[in-house]
Amino acid sequence: MNLLDNKKEMSRRDMLINGGKVAAVTAVAAMGVLQTVKKSEAYENTGAATYKYLKLDPQEVAQSTYENYFKRWCTSSVIAGFAENLKKKGAAGWNDFPIDAYRWAHGGFAGWGALCGTMPGAGIVIGLVTKDTDVAEAMTNDLAFYYSYTDLPSFVPAKVLKAPIKHMTMAGTPVCHISVGKWMRAEGVAFLSNERQERCARLAANVAAEATTMLNTYYVDGTYKPKHKPLYNVLANGITSQNNCSDCHGQSVPSPRETYESLEK
Amino acid sequence: MNLLDNKKEMSRRDMLINGGKVAAVTAVAAMGVLQTVKKSEAYENTGAATYKYLKLDPQEVAQSTYENYFKRWCTSSVIAGFAENLKKKGAAGWNDFPIDAYRWAHGGFAGWGALCGTMPGAGIVIGLVTKDTDVAEAMTNDLAFYYSYTDLPSFVPAKVLKAPIKHMTMAGTPVCHISVGKWMRAEGVAFLSNERQERCARLAANVAAEATTMLNTYYVDGTYKPKHKPLYNVLANGITSQNNCSDCHGQSVPSPRETYESLEK
Repeated sequence: MNLLDNKKEMSRRDMLINGGKVAAVTAVAAMGVLQTVKKSEAYENTGAATYKYLKLDPQEVAQSTYENYFKRWCTSSVIAGFAENLKKKGAAGWNDFPIDAYRWAHGGFAGWGALCGTMPGAGIVIGLVTKDTDVAEAMTNDLAFYYSYTDLPSFVPAKVLKAPIKHMTMAGTPVCHISVGKWMRAEGVAFLSNERQERCARLAANVAAEATTMLNTYYVDGTYKPKHKPLYNVLANGITSQNNCSDCHGQSVPSPRETYESLEK
Repeated sequence: MNLLDNKKEMSRRDMLINGGKVAAVTAVAAMGVLQTVKKSEAYENTGAATYKYLKLDPQEVAQSTYENYFKRWCTSSVIAGFAENLKKKGAAGWNDFPIDAYRWAHGGFAGWGALCGTMPGAGIVIGLVTKDTDVAEAMTNDLAFYYSYTDLPSFVPAKVLKAPIKHMTMAGTPVCHISVGKWMRAEGVAFLSNERQERCARLAANVAAEATTMLNTYYVDGTYKPKHKPLYNVLANGITSQNNCSDCHGQSVPSPRETYESLEK
């Protein structure tokens, strides 16, 4: 089954049900295209033999991440939260892990405000310790849902290191600029403030704790049950995407139909 | 010198000159806040002792990246382009490098369309082989400028593996969704098409070639001269950001003044 086999059976109604999302049959067909390289060498992380995971306390990983933020920024602080605790437990591969080699991913890529740096920080650890790359795909996808649709930061540090803060906000997106901008507006502070640093440190702690919980399940059960369908956004919207289309497109969100029809040319 | 010392000397005119950007004095002051952790352990990549770089042919790295794309997707294909060629040259650290541990960064983070996965692919290599994290910061920042403001993809493969394509587009952003969306519209094809895969494979090749050129300079000269000021966007716009503000904000781009004034509370 592939996308072209199915296209003649699709009606406009099929594609517009479910709030403008493409119908399930399209999603199934699309999976065929996306999975053409399934089970190739590219789906195994050979690093899993080197980088081991042991069950960790999410609160301890979060606290380490928070403390590291103020010298390492978002991405490397999440990696440090894991590396310090895995090293303490004696897990292989973490003794001399180059935590700061990934610093450039801060602030949505060297400050460009794209992907919030906390998530690639967690992704790097997740990707290294899980053998089947489909597991890392499922966990990072779930992490993006958690990040986007949870009021954050909810983490409360053992001791406040920069400044007390009052607000939590729901980003609606994994994009750094939008996420931090919404929070800055709610809190009434600038980017270069102690409060904003405190917020991002606590947010990094939340992301680290959530990823720890996922990896603990994987460590105990030997598998991971996704909370959300991997590649859902790609299949639903016909493009790599979030689910906050109108935030940028306003009332003129391009229809998956438009994308789909171009296949029929 | 810090931000608070300077704020009373700022006039509204100072902050609105330069096309709505903050004035240089603010930028200098802001750097003080951003650099409070300067020269700490977090500014050295300890992994540089393990992962070595040797001068490579940008075209060869690009070709390897292109060929790998169709099984590994954007992030891991760029890593593979470097790893295969560094291994061939005998550079330490790349023999068993876990190329596919970073697959999850594809499509802007597991398909969420945020940061184009080609750039974190290059960033991972850059971050591992450069000792001073300021060098990686400068290179990734320059890479985001290259990616955003160049008509791409310009790479021409030795043999077309998926489909001939006609268009190059300027993304104006490092964001996957916008970048690929603009190209899809110009080419008139859907995301799940051979043409789109061909485009992303060639784009990954371009990014790999550009990063190779940067690393060659660093390898030969022992240093890297940034083309663009690191953290420019953060300092100019008062938030982690790109420079295409009106694409999403329309005529209502928040002023740095608004951000700045909140500091005076």
